[in-house]
Amino acid sequence: MLNFEFYAPARILFGKGTEAQIGELLKPHASKVLLHYGGGSIKKSGLYDTVTASLQKSGVAFAELGGVRPNPRLALVKEGIALCKKENVDLILAVGGGSAIDSAKAIAMGVCYGGDVWDVYDQNIEIEKALPVAVILTIPAAGSESSGDTVITNEEKQLKYGYGSPRLRPLLSIINPELFFTLPKEQLANGVADMMSHVFERYFTNTTHTDLTDGLCEATLKTLMKNAPLACRNMRDYDAWSELGFGGTVAHNGLVGMGREQDWACHNMEHELSAIYDVAHGAGLAVLTPGWMRYVYKDNVNMFVQFAVNVMGVEGGYRDPDAVILEGIDRLQAFFGKLGLTSTLSGLGIGEDRLEEMAKKATGAAFDDEQPLGGLKKLYWRDVLEIYKMVK
Amino acid sequence: MLNFEFYAPARILFGKGTEAQIGELLKPHASKVLLHYGGGSIKKSGLYDTVTASLQKSGVAFAELGGVRPNPRLALVKEGIALCKKENVDLILAVGGGSAIDSAKAIAMGVCYGGDVWDVYDQNIEIEKALPVAVILTIPAAGSESSGDTVITNEEKQLKYGYGSPRLRPLLSIINPELFFTLPKEQLANGVADMMSHVFERYFTNTTHTDLTDGLCEATLKTLMKNAPLACRNMRDYDAWSELGFGGTVAHNGLVGMGREQDWACHNMEHELSAIYDVAHGAGLAVLTPGWMRYVYKDNVNMFVQFAVNVMGVEGGYRDPDAVILEGIDRLQAFFGKLGLTSTLSGLGIGEDRLEEMAKKATGAAFDDEQPLGGLKKLYWRDVLEIYKMVK
Repeated sequence: MLNFEFYAPARILFGKGTEAQIGELLKPHASKVLLHYGGGSIKKSGLYDTVTASLQKSGVAFAELGGVRPNPRLALVKEGIALCKKENVDLILAVGGGSAIDSAKAIAMGVCYGGDVWDVYDQNIEIEKALPVAVILTIPAAGSESSGDTVITNEEKQLKYGYGSPRLRPLLSIINPELFFTLPKEQLANGVADMMSHVFERYFTNTTHTDLTDGLCEATLKTLMKNAPLACRNMRDYDAWSELGFGGTVAHNGLVGMGREQDWACHNMEHELSAIYDVAHGAGLAVLTPGWMRYVYKDNVNMFVQFAVNVMGVEGGYRDPDAVILEGIDRLQAFFGKLGLTSTLSGLGIGEDRLEEMAKKATGAAFDDEQPLGGLKKLYWRDVLEIYKMVK
Repeated sequence: MLNFEFYAPARILFGKGTEAQIGELLKPHASKVLLHYGGGSIKKSGLYDTVTASLQKSGVAFAELGGVRPNPRLALVKEGIALCKKENVDLILAVGGGSAIDSAKAIAMGVCYGGDVWDVYDQNIEIEKALPVAVILTIPAAGSESSGDTVITNEEKQLKYGYGSPRLRPLLSIINPELFFTLPKEQLANGVADMMSHVFERYFTNTTHTDLTDGLCEATLKTLMKNAPLACRNMRDYDAWSELGFGGTVAHNGLVGMGREQDWACHNMEHELSAIYDVAHGAGLAVLTPGWMRYVYKDNVNMFVQFAVNVMGVEGGYRDPDAVILEGIDRLQAFFGKLGLTSTLSGLGIGEDRLEEMAKKATGAAFDDEQPLGGLKKLYWRDVLEIYKMVK
């Protein structure tokens, strides 16, 4: 186990009806909030009315900015920053999934940062301050409701960069699984692939003596894999959505990765797909992850056997480790397939013409600053290109 | 899954050498701290020198109060409160195990509370303020380094009461497994029994649809049971102590019990033993837990079969559930035995003469205010007496 620091101060309120408490919960922390959300779905579902009524009842004023899209855009962030300054907003309330939350975090730090907020992402600048962010989660996936991470797309430059700071951990997050009932099945599938990837990025490691976090990772993965098909079958299955909603938070609040060298190659490779082709993040991860596994597993056979046996339920024993591992990866791919996720880039509508460009951008080779991706195996641009080609 | 609120803001710094950072870490939060500890062990080990040197180097002034004993006493808490007021202390730094931390929390709220701090425990008064508490952990057991709980013994009244508030969650806790190398084996055993009990109290529940937390509980229990014998064999096994140190925190920071009705009968029954006979808390729990399991399991056979199979590795299949469960409980008792823990009250030096008195105090029947203990099965004073007798 490596030395680590764990800090996950977000207060999580979980369960039926919790969103109606939002005004009362925010009152001690804010006089005016920015209500930040995506398209019209929260208006159609009635959530917008519940939230605004609760704020009004508690005497919390609000400005609002909708229009967050998947792979949230820098342009809207800048609009939000200007609006918050003009309206003297002192807290950002994101009502939505990872995109709305990540956009809210960008606004929250942009209001306090002197320069161009994109520089924070581009140059990984340590921020000193951010407005507090609160969340009402409508899509369990990104884990942004408890993490200090944000990912923003610079649409002009076709770049999608992540940034993290403990100052961006939400103040509080409300998770009511009932709010997930009306999601399209596609978003369920994408979300589960994203949550599982958050665990994978931490689970696959060369660090040894990691019994506790191994077990926590495996328990989280098995919970997600058991409950995703149940929610898929009945989109109003509160119990299944509860496991997914809570699982998504545990997958990404940091705990299951403590004391381990982490990987994050798949996330970085996926960001290139989303930046150029605007594909759903989870869908991209479901394509890349099995390919990545097949490309890297020989670098740590023990870890991948453990995965196949403990998570995917493959029979281990005295069998050939390669066979055990490949069966595990096949089962994972089949699981994604049953959720309706494609296993190829072409299935995402991505051709072969820009693979090399993406591989070079992912590793920085495009900017003459190549930094290999990954922890379990270091991946240079030629490796990344190889993986893209494996799943084309 | 039940609605829940999860809030565990303690910043955990884990690993080798972390205690030397204490001055730098506390400087932004305190100008004068109370260094609160137990007997002379931290002076003998050199930890006292490391800590005071770090505080001095960072310009953090300190007063000090040693002498905390296991089952920490109200009298010392009152002394600490007076000292903090006199010395204008603004943060309590506990260097020790659960007793030092619990005592520090009592002082931290006592300084801010107008009346007698015992009333807070006795009448479960909601506190509005407490000084911040920081921790350097020297015994992994109580989980108090991340919880908002404190247990204090009123030696005059022979009462041991617990109290919890989110305001008592430590600001930060330092866990360096190297500091555990010099513990007596007995404290390792007691500590592991206490950590496991923290999971059991949450794990055994009648709440259904608890896949994620079931898995997290089981992973934590298995980690503790795998690593306790390793550390017992070689008390300088850093890796094993790391799993126990991190496991003890995860066992009691609240996460593994979220959304579940919890039990806590064993803890309440044990507090009576400690209050009168001053036995080690973990040792008392190791006696009571198997007895409690045998007394209550018929109320939720499925849960106990799951425990026997998933945690204790008993073969399930088509066997008689009672046999499976009893084999699981026997294995648990054997595990405690191998750590050197007794399985009887007489082994703790407790006779039969005050069992009824303790059963009545545990349930409040002694004060004409009987409230049954437990969640999985409600236990009245006659039930508690029965359990005490089963393990006499």
